[in-house]
Amino acid sequence: MDSHIAAVELGKAYRLINHGPTVLVSARHGGVDNVMSAAWCCALDFAPPKLTVVLDKATRTRALVERSGQFVIQVPTVAQLQLTQDVGNRSLADMPDKLPRSGVQLFDIGGHALPFVAGCSAWLACKLIPEPHNQQAYDLFIGEVTAAWADTRVFSQGRWHFEDADPSLRSLHHIAGGHFYAIGEPLAARNDEA
Amino acid sequence: MDSHIAAVELGKAYRLINHGPTVLVSARHGGVDNVMSAAWCCALDFAPPKLTVVLDKATRTRALVERSGQFVIQVPTVAQLQLTQDVGNRSLADMPDKLPRSGVQLFDIGGHALPFVAGCSAWLACKLIPEPHNQQAYDLFIGEVTAAWADTRVFSQGRWHFEDADPSLRSLHHIAGGHFYAIGEPLAARNDEA
Repeated sequence: MDSHIAAVELGKAYRLINHGPTVLVSARHGGVDNVMSAAWCCALDFAPPKLTVVLDKATRTRALVERSGQFVIQVPTVAQLQLTQDVGNRSLADMPDKLPRSGVQLFDIGGHALPFVAGCSAWLACKLIPEPHNQQAYDLFIGEVTAAWADTRVFSQGRWHFEDADPSLRSLHHIAGGHFYAIGEPLAARNDEA
Repeated sequence: MDSHIAAVELGKAYRLINHGPTVLVSARHGGVDNVMSAAWCCALDFAPPKLTVVLDKATRTRALVERSGQFVIQVPTVAQLQLTQDVGNRSLADMPDKLPRSGVQLFDIGGHALPFVAGCSAWLACKLIPEPHNQQAYDLFIGEVTAAWADTRVFSQGRWHFEDADPSLRSLHHIAGGHFYAIGEPLAARNDEA
């Protein structure tokens, strides 16, 4: 495991995705690993932390999630722009070597039988909370975050520090058709008259 | 209605929130209007366009949504940083003049009995799709987008143009405790070898 990776306390795990980044979803079942990108992933609760992610019925990753009951949500970086685009547009069904051809390197984290994508800035290991109606009617999956990690160069002491890190570590925010924005500059609002 | 506001075709309405901005949720019932901020709002489908939003049981806005069956999701701007923070931290229950004290001005759009917040960059009128289990167990609400508009200075021809507009029109992305990021610079990935 990369020396920059540190655990994130579960109570602050929602902050890893609170700013709405496009994410990578990875899953493993029966010896098959896959990774896809997803713009439609969102925090759902603080404690225990939960999140939602939309997984189309056509994706192989969805089948791996349904069969294994677990998945990883990870936050890709500006350096992974093309990787993020490619894993979202290529299917393991048509391209058996999709992951190496898309530049994906996987790594393990002890105690978690899940494929983690190297080079991301944050990782959230999730346990599927089965909700068959949501999954069938809306392609909407709910996960409980059971562990989280981040790259300390860009997330530490419970918050992102994009402004102090290399711009290549910023998060990606997809609009459509390969057009993304990087996250920008920090802004602080006043707290109320407390 | 502001002269910069134009309708957005429904097939492209998802793009208004695809990059994960913090949004304002507004609703009206029984002569009461309210507005709250929400970081947990996410696209759910393309056609018809749907979205999810998490509305805590403690919020007055949620009660207005449940009673009226409709709401507006709007995208606030950097110029509305403090307004966005304030409507998220103040409750109409404790502060009857919450909206004027937070600097909120509402306007009407003909044919929609909904309160729209002036100064935002995009507005999505939504009809609640009742899902009592999701609402009760997860505070998760699903809306179908029935009409959408955007400020043409920053969204036109079906896409955002943050890079060509005044920085005060950029979207806000909340982390926690009043710490936000503005959306940043555009990045374009190559389309696959098609």
